[in-house]
Formats: sequence, C-alpha cells, structure tokens
Amino acid sequence: MTHEIAVIPGDGIGQEVTPAAVEVLEALDPEFTFTEAEAGDAVAEKTGKALPEETYELAASADATLFGAAGETAADVILPLRDAVDSFVNVRPAKAYPGVDAVRPETDLVFLRENTEGVYAGHEDRLTEDVATLTRVTTQSASRQLAEFACEYVDSDGFTIAHKANVMRETDGLFRDTVAAVAEERGVATDEVLMDAFATRVCLDPTQFDVVACPNLAGDVLSDLAAGLVGGLGLLPSANIGEQRALFEPVHGTAPDIAGEGVANPAATIISAAMLLEYLDYGEEADAVHAAVESTLAEGPRTPDLGGDASTSDVTNAIIDQL
Amino acid sequence: MTHEIAVIPGDGIGQEVTPAAVEVLEALDPEFTFTEAEAGDAVAEKTGKALPEETYELAASADATLFGAAGETAADVILPLRDAVDSFVNVRPAKAYPGVDAVRPETDLVFLRENTEGVYAGHEDRLTEDVATLTRVTTQSASRQLAEFACEYVDSDGFTIAHKANVMRETDGLFRDTVAAVAEERGVATDEVLMDAFATRVCLDPTQFDVVACPNLAGDVLSDLAAGLVGGLGLLPSANIGEQRALFEPVHGTAPDIAGEGVANPAATIISAAMLLEYLDYGEEADAVHAAVESTLAEGPRTPDLGGDASTSDVTNAIIDQL
Ligand SMILES: CC(C)[C@H](C(=O)O)[C@@H](O)C(=O)O
Ligand SMILES: CC(C)[C@H](C(=O)O)[C@@H](O)C(=O)O
Repeated sequence: MTHEIAVIPGDGIGQEVTPAAVEVLEALDPEFTFTEAEAGDAVAEKTGKALPEETYELAASADATLFGAAGETAADVILPLRDAVDSFVNVRPAKAYPGVDAVRPETDLVFLRENTEGVYAGHEDRLTEDVATLTRVTTQSASRQLAEFACEYVDSDGFTIAHKANVMRETDGLFRDTVAAVAEERGVATDEVLMDAFATRVCLDPTQFDVVACPNLAGDVLSDLAAGLVGGLGLLPSANIGEQRALFEPVHGTAPDIAGEGVANPAATIISAAMLLEYLDYGEEADAVHAAVESTLAEGPRTPDLGGDASTSDVTNAIIDQL
Repeated sequence: MTHEIAVIPGDGIGQEVTPAAVEVLEALDPEFTFTEAEAGDAVAEKTGKALPEETYELAASADATLFGAAGETAADVILPLRDAVDSFVNVRPAKAYPGVDAVRPETDLVFLRENTEGVYAGHEDRLTEDVATLTRVTTQSASRQLAEFACEYVDSDGFTIAHKANVMRETDGLFRDTVAAVAEERGVATDEVLMDAFATRVCLDPTQFDVVACPNLAGDVLSDLAAGLVGGLGLLPSANIGEQRALFEPVHGTAPDIAGEGVANPAATIISAAMLLEYLDYGEEADAVHAAVESTLAEGPRTPDLGGDASTSDVTNAIIDQL
C-alpha cells in the first residue's frame, strides 16, 4: 500500500535534518510518496501565517507527517499540527545512547503525554487590567483514550501515572482515576507519583521509572527534564499519534546558532522517522534504522554537538550505509 | 523585642526534626516564645480536621511559624497555613553541600515561587461525568509583589523568569510581562526561559541560573527538580514569606519509613530555622546556624540518609556545639 508522507522542514536546522531523514526513508524504499510544505517563521514573515492553510490540510490528509522545527512561531505551528492529525498522545522516549555524554546514562524512559487537553486547550481571558484567567478542561474520554494506548504500549508491563491530583483534585484527579481504572480493567499494573516528586526522584534514580503517562503540561516539562538527564534535546524523537494519521518530530528546536552550516545532528529526526516507519507497520525497517543510528552514535562519524567534526550528510550517509 | 514563634511539628519525622530546630533556636537565646500546635494526619484521625482552627489562628497571629511535615493530609495543612501567614512568595534555595553526594554538585539556585495563585487557587468543577474544569487566576498585583521581592532579594544582580507564556499567553504572559516591567523600573536585569527548556538546561548546567522567579506550579516542579540535582529533598529548607509574618518548613515529607527511630536528618529544618532568624532580623545568628550546619554536613556526625549512623540528636548537638 502506498503511503502519503507530508514533509514540513520548518525553520533553522529543520531545513537540514528533515531532508536527511527523508533520505534515510528513501533508502529503505518503502512505498511512500513525499509532499513538502512550509511552516514557521520564514513563511510567517512572507505571508503573515506561520501555518498556511495548505500545510494544515496536507498534514490532515497525509498518512503521516515528518516535521522539523519552527522558531519563534513554534507554538503556532506545532499545536495546530497536532490537532490536524487528531493526535491524542505524544510519545516521547528519552534514552541515553552509549557513547554520548549524559548526566544519567542509565535513563531509559518513555513519556506518554496526553496531547489534546489541559492548559494547551485552555480558554484564556484578560478580565481586567489586573486579572487574567485560564480554564483548562480534563475529560474522561481523552484520559481513557490515553490509557488504552498506554496499556497496549506497555503490553504486559505496568506503567506510572504522574499528576498533581493533590492540588488539582477534580481535573488531574479525573485523569488519574480514569487512567488507573482503564488499566485495572485490562489487567495492567499502574503506580502513581506526584509530578513534583517525580522531578526529584527521576534525577536521583531514573531506573525507578519506565513508561510514564501524564497530562499535557506535566508531559511537556517532565519529558524535557528527562532530556536533560540524557544529555540534551539533541537526540530525542517524538511521535504525535492519532487514530488515522500521525506526526513525527525531533524534540529539539531550530538551533539558530548553527543553522545553515550543514553540521546539525540529524539523529533525532531520523529516529523520529523510525517511529513513523513503526506507525505505518514497517517494523523491520524501523528496527534497522534504530540499529543504524545507535551504532553510528557509538562509533561515529559525529557532528560537533557530540564532539566530532562531521557534517549532517556524513552522519546521514553513515546511517544509510548501515541499513 | 519578643517574637512569638508557632511550632507545628506535624506527622512522622516532623515530630523529630522540628524539636531539634527549636533546640538550635533556644541555644541562640533570641527573645522568642514558642507555642506548639497540632496539624496533619494524626490530628485528622482524632478530630476529623487536618488543620485545627486553633493551629490556623496561631500561625495567623505568630510572628513566624516553624512547620515540620504532614503525611497524606499535606495539601490540607500546608496550603491553608501559607494562607494563614499571607505568604506571597515561597523562597526555595537548592544548593549542594560539600561532602554530600549530588547529581550536580555545582548547583546553587534559589527559586522565588509565587505563592497565592495559579492552579493552587484554581476553582474546579466536575461539569459532567466526562468533563472537569479548572480555572486559574493570575493577577498583575500578585506578580508585581513577587517581582518587588525578587528585586530586593537579588539586590543588584539579575534574575531569571521561568514560565510557559508561549502556551498560557494571557496568564503566564501577564506574569512574565509584569515581573519584567517591575524589574526594569528598578534597574534589575532579567532574562526569561520557558519552564520546559529550563528543565532540560538546568540538568545540563545548573550554573547557568541563579535566582529564578516563577508562577506557583512551575516553582513547585522546578524546585523539586533542583532538589533532585543536589541529592534529594533531605537538605532543602523553604520560607513562605508574608508582609507581617512567615512560615518556614523543610521541603521533605514525613519519611514514614524511618519515623520514630530518632535518626531523621534535622538539617533541612534547622536551615529553615536559620531563614526564620534572618526574617526576624537576627542576621548574625542566622549566619552562625548556616555555618554550623555546613561544617557538620562536611565533617559529621551524619545521619543514615548521608551514610552515617548518628542520631537526630547527635547531629543537633554537633550543630549547637559549633554555634
Ligand atoms: C512549542 C511548544 C508549544 C511545545 C509544547 O509545549 O508542547 C514544545 O515545548 C514541545 O514540547 O513540543
Ligand atoms: C503538599 C503540596 C500541596 C505542596 C505544594 O505542591 O506546594 C508541596 O509539594 C510543596 O511543594 O510544598
């Protein structure tokens, strides 16, 4: 079956690492057709819109989207794109790679972040000069959908629910209770941890945790914390999964300091492309990409962020050679 | 001038570390009168109320309160107590001590956490079986009060504003803009960072930051993250500062696994007592306590959490001996 893949490089190093990941996909020769579209600061400057209608429509109709990065306009691009693919979960693995400096090399976590609600779908008002409000919503249905995904994701293992239900008793409480109840129905074990306690404990010993399900903002902050433990955002992939389609993006940004120099590390985007392959049922190809990235990270060549002097294309070619 | 100090040991090791800190204060012989009151799980079991009216009133009238810890009922105790002392800022230093194992020994941060608003003062509703909402408020006035405190706190140095205004544009936006404007009026430099980026960056290099002002929930999570970097909650003090009165508490909890054994580390509560001394203008005495704690941590005796076999009172006596 042919799959339509939308490719949205965006700004900065997005323009370098996204084509690199497409090269890797092409080398595997799956039945993909690629269509490119614009988003981000550059197109906003030209047209006034960071996310052109056509780009939204493309992501909303493609089987999968590969997104690079956006600059100042990141929130205006990525939040509607997550919506375009009807994504209910943001999957964020945070794993340290052998041969890469990490604060906590033993870190190997996956965050399953609720991707539709919380403050991200909050309604804000500036009521008076003094007062602004934000109303966030939590639903049983979104919590249930995340929980069902989590149960399938962990298979027979358990997972952890991170939340702040001691303060947000109704909203985070509903999230926690719903997720725990779904897991129990399905015979999947869960434990729970307050998000602040998680922040302390994951630094002290990240091996205490494995798969962590959380509300949207908690998932944002805690997965970025885990990124710090594995040595930075540079190597982290992510997947925004929906029922019909999905969007894959590196967690890093546009890296304006090195953009245009051809030395950006393509690994995070290439690993995101591996998650795309997995989503479209190319399991073997996905495994091959993961293995090729891992051995390239361990043996080189390496881009400057990892202490080497290789270019983006040196690394991309080395990965392709190992497929 | 005589100062009235409320002492609320609470549950678990709160019953051991709070009297230890009072001993240290008594050894300095300031003009303090101490009045003890109950709060927490134990009193809730007896009376149905985790925070008895008399305890609230005592904290609301004393010059300063020293609080230990509460168990399951922590939120029902500490949130109203912060309110009792009209606290607008929670000061949370996170510093690694020489001789104490830390993930990032170079960490030396102070969080200034807005202490009245955000989701902590949120109004929650369970609208339908499916839907719960939370409305949080941010005011210019509370942001301004925090900012004024921050400017005095850093003196001529600058500080960092951590927020998530790219998503919470009105609420965190109002917070950020107000704090930045107040600092500018007063000639204090600020920079800003998104709270998720802060989580990554502080792991990679905590020396990038110094004093960090944040909204309530961000302050909760980011300061607990910093606690992880310095080796855990065990040594972290905190101060809830109001205009007329204040409340001081270790960041750690009740440690039920070791409660009653007389081996709890009293350092965090004793450092909190040093912050109390400072607040009441006993600057020299505060410095003496800080110095005595630091040298005891470096040279021992040490409680089991730091690899020693000393008791709470061994450590307390060692600190008192060095005053
Ligand atoms: C750009 C921003 C809106 C986004 C988020 O907060 O979700 C980013 O931080 C992320 O985690 O992908
Ligand atoms: C017990 C809880 C309500 C409290 C908070 O979230 O403020 C605690 O985590 C803290 O940081 O003091």
